[in-house]
Amino acid sequence: MVLYSIDQLHEIVNQEIPNSKLKKEPNELYAPIEYILSIGGKRIRPLLVLMGYNLFSENIEEALNAAIAIEIFHNFTLAHDDIMDNSSMRRNMPTIHKKWNNNVAILSGDAMLIKAYQYISKYKNNILSKILDVFNKTAIEVCEGQQFDMNFEQRIDVSENEYLNMIKLKTSVLIAASLKIGAIIANAKEDDTNSLYNFGLNLGLAFQLQDDMLDVYGKSEIFGKKIGGDIIANKKTYLLIKALEITKSDNKSKLIEILKQKEFDNNKKIKTVIEIYNSVGIKEQVENKISEYYSKAKDSLSDVNINESRKSELIALSNKLMKRNM
Amino acid sequence: MVLYSIDQLHEIVNQEIPNSKLKKEPNELYAPIEYILSIGGKRIRPLLVLMGYNLFSENIEEALNAAIAIEIFHNFTLAHDDIMDNSSMRRNMPTIHKKWNNNVAILSGDAMLIKAYQYISKYKNNILSKILDVFNKTAIEVCEGQQFDMNFEQRIDVSENEYLNMIKLKTSVLIAASLKIGAIIANAKEDDTNSLYNFGLNLGLAFQLQDDMLDVYGKSEIFGKKIGGDIIANKKTYLLIKALEITKSDNKSKLIEILKQKEFDNNKKIKTVIEIYNSVGIKEQVENKISEYYSKAKDSLSDVNINESRKSELIALSNKLMKRNM
Repeated sequence: MVLYSIDQLHEIVNQEIPNSKLKKEPNELYAPIEYILSIGGKRIRPLLVLMGYNLFSENIEEALNAAIAIEIFHNFTLAHDDIMDNSSMRRNMPTIHKKWNNNVAILSGDAMLIKAYQYISKYKNNILSKILDVFNKTAIEVCEGQQFDMNFEQRIDVSENEYLNMIKLKTSVLIAASLKIGAIIANAKEDDTNSLYNFGLNLGLAFQLQDDMLDVYGKSEIFGKKIGGDIIANKKTYLLIKALEITKSDNKSKLIEILKQKEFDNNKKIKTVIEIYNSVGIKEQVENKISEYYSKAKDSLSDVNINESRKSELIALSNKLMKRNM
Repeated sequence: MVLYSIDQLHEIVNQEIPNSKLKKEPNELYAPIEYILSIGGKRIRPLLVLMGYNLFSENIEEALNAAIAIEIFHNFTLAHDDIMDNSSMRRNMPTIHKKWNNNVAILSGDAMLIKAYQYISKYKNNILSKILDVFNKTAIEVCEGQQFDMNFEQRIDVSENEYLNMIKLKTSVLIAASLKIGAIIANAKEDDTNSLYNFGLNLGLAFQLQDDMLDVYGKSEIFGKKIGGDIIANKKTYLLIKALEITKSDNKSKLIEILKQKEFDNNKKIKTVIEIYNSVGIKEQVENKISEYYSKAKDSLSDVNINESRKSELIALSNKLMKRNM
């Protein structure tokens, strides 16, 4: 049974993304969809659909429509999140609502969500129902995650559990669903599709926590973003929430003070916050949490009842994701 | 075989609308959904799903999930359209984006679209695929219609055909799809589901044109809206487009002049525009067009191969819709 490499699957995905074959009228509806789909990104989620499939079966084309559906869905969430978060840039390009306007971003986002369902609807019968169950549940959860994330912006008392639940909903469930849907299309056993889902869920959590950590402790040339962006934006990250939880009196007041400042020097703010993080060992705490989730992920992958050799590409991708600069 | 009355079906729909049974967290996501679903409206589309079903079968509960799906989808379009059109009120209540904010309206709208698919996904196998084909196509068309509508706001050269195509996409296809989906669930023959679709399409066109006409020539106490609202808002209606097409030199310049005015007296503007409409017999023209579509609708309904007595409630509803104040 053929086992495709990451690079091969990546090429297959890129060839199939509908970034120039869409209907053209009205142009304001379809041009933004082609635009955001053509900008690229890492295509992690469609890759995971194909890999989830390829663990159990080799006719990779069978899983392509689901892979495309998941990628279009992911881009729908980006288009709408960028409006809500008022982000100007995404993947070094102007966001849809900046390049066009809010209305275009709302409506072309809606159309992408429907297009995602159109790709899913190409499956039939029992497989279709199973995919829809996972996809519908996941899509709603992603909306819940985005709403929690927005709510947290207004609060300084977000607990660790609330935060972990939020990133699970906003990020991890789609990673998990991608793998599970691929496996469903390959007719995998339910136990295996669930183990794979748990693998994705824990990998997603580890990945998001790593993202939080790299904002502070990453090397900017490898990470690809400027260090401290989350700190400047007062973003509720695992590091900040944990620091607010465990710092004592003086440092805690200082941290809350910093969060309330309307005017500040960026570099000084970053330096001060990192000093507080360092004083309570935040780096080790988040690293431990990442290891914990990554280890849970690997346990779940072990539970998938197939020959270990078939898991090699998925493990390679996970390691690649988790070792961005560690 | 039981034939349900309009009132009976209306009650069944109202009982099933999920306006207080939704999951509660995060509240900002679910409260707006319950809010807009509880405000009501005429529930025409879910009624049409049940009626489309009841033409062919009597176990009306079979069609309920689709009826709810269509109503939730319709409310998703209202929530997002209200942001795009910057409307403050809907059904005499504040719109979601006014009561909460734009972000809440975007995200709860997204969640409604997904919820609609969740209700549809309760069907299985062949029926599920058939419903999804109709629903996906319709949903995309509704987005296209909304985009055309927004584009037309910036233009004064919209042709009659462009306008008719826009209202077909924005309004009629969902009316048509509601009936067709009901019939599909009842296992109706393809010819019959298509005739029913054409009935809905032409009824929807007649209904929308009537809406345009009533804004100018309706009795406000029956129509429920103030006369001339479309004129004040420079809305591209069939009447305006037709008048721009057929008025000659002086009146045409006057009409274009009026559309460009930034400051004006509402009553004077309404009066002047109606005078121009009257001078070229717009009322008769739009009435003829309405009759043409309504007659086409009735022809399509005749094509549906069932006993004429089973069509009585659907005909009664159509007449009710088309005789709002004629």
